[in-house]
Amino acid sequence: MPEYKLIYFNARGRAELIRWIFAYGDIPYTDERVEKEDWPEKKKNVPGGKVPVLMVDGKPLPQSLAIARYVAKQADLVPQDHLEAAYCDALADTLAEVKGEAYKIMFSSQSEEEKKKVYREEFFPNVMAPVLERLEKRLQEREWFVSDKVTWADLMISLVFGEVQKRKAELLEAYPAVVTLVNKVRDILAIKQWLETAPDTPF
Amino acid sequence: MPEYKLIYFNARGRAELIRWIFAYGDIPYTDERVEKEDWPEKKKNVPGGKVPVLMVDGKPLPQSLAIARYVAKQADLVPQDHLEAAYCDALADTLAEVKGEAYKIMFSSQSEEEKKKVYREEFFPNVMAPVLERLEKRLQEREWFVSDKVTWADLMISLVFGEVQKRKAELLEAYPAVVTLVNKVRDILAIKQWLETAPDTPF
Repeated sequence: MPEYKLIYFNARGRAELIRWIFAYGDIPYTDERVEKEDWPEKKKNVPGGKVPVLMVDGKPLPQSLAIARYVAKQADLVPQDHLEAAYCDALADTLAEVKGEAYKIMFSSQSEEEKKKVYREEFFPNVMAPVLERLEKRLQEREWFVSDKVTWADLMISLVFGEVQKRKAELLEAYPAVVTLVNKVRDILAIKQWLETAPDTPF
Repeated sequence: MPEYKLIYFNARGRAELIRWIFAYGDIPYTDERVEKEDWPEKKKNVPGGKVPVLMVDGKPLPQSLAIARYVAKQADLVPQDHLEAAYCDALADTLAEVKGEAYKIMFSSQSEEEKKKVYREEFFPNVMAPVLERLEKRLQEREWFVSDKVTWADLMISLVFGEVQKRKAELLEAYPAVVTLVNKVRDILAIKQWLETAPDTPF
């Protein structure tokens, strides 16, 4: 197996899905966390100047979802069937869009009060709820997102909506099948152990 | 083979890469183009309300890159090697980010004059040039983006920077290996034929 080093900030952010997949697959890797104040200096030595980046035997692979999909293949979390694999990919891109919109608000120059209003009146009803509705419908009909087997799409659903559950559980009240999946993934032994030992960071 | 119908606007936009891959693989599909004025009505019947969407035997697959990767597998444009496949994925996400930044400017409320200034002073030097520099370095060392064989990453490079070449060829002057690849992909017989017969749309 190649030697893996994942470089990211000391945060869950765009790297946590990759860490979950490594944990699920019991794949050894170095989890290098760069502190914010060290980033300007470190950035010069990171190929492309962006994180997360996965060093594979010293060669850089950028882009969080490309890394996640690659590690997921090693962890047997990508379906063999091409169409099922594509549904995972589509879900990952959709959730990345949802997260991107949330980050935009989080890092905007608005006041905390204004941000809350945007989350409540725009982000939740127009961005997150439509995705939750489609997911709920789908998850009411099957055990996992694409098939009878867990995939990296399930890990991403659990990661993203588990964050929502921690911050504002009432937003998920209308989506019981999504909540069931969030918890089911977090109850997988390897994920449970990672959650118990992972560094505690605010986001 | 499943029955494919690609639904998108009458534009290249986020669907053209998929059309190139269908053309390369000589895979039959219906290229459904919705006119802008028909979209509000059509939107109600498009699962998720967003395009492009690929109907696979009547079942919807959303997200342009998930669709492209899926069709690319059928067209033998995805490397078997997992790391090579991941480099293609990372490149696709990076070019999608570049296109996303360009669209943001294109659809902003600024005047044409202001837009040109943003393209010239911010988008090109900070967003597009760093990507072109890394690509140029890579393509000077090998024939295709990841290996000795064309992949969907090469098609995307040719599509994205071919658009730049059409509009402002001088921006690519410092990147001769990229220009060579742009042209080489467009000279592949199936792509050449598609370019000769594809509907002529402004973008």
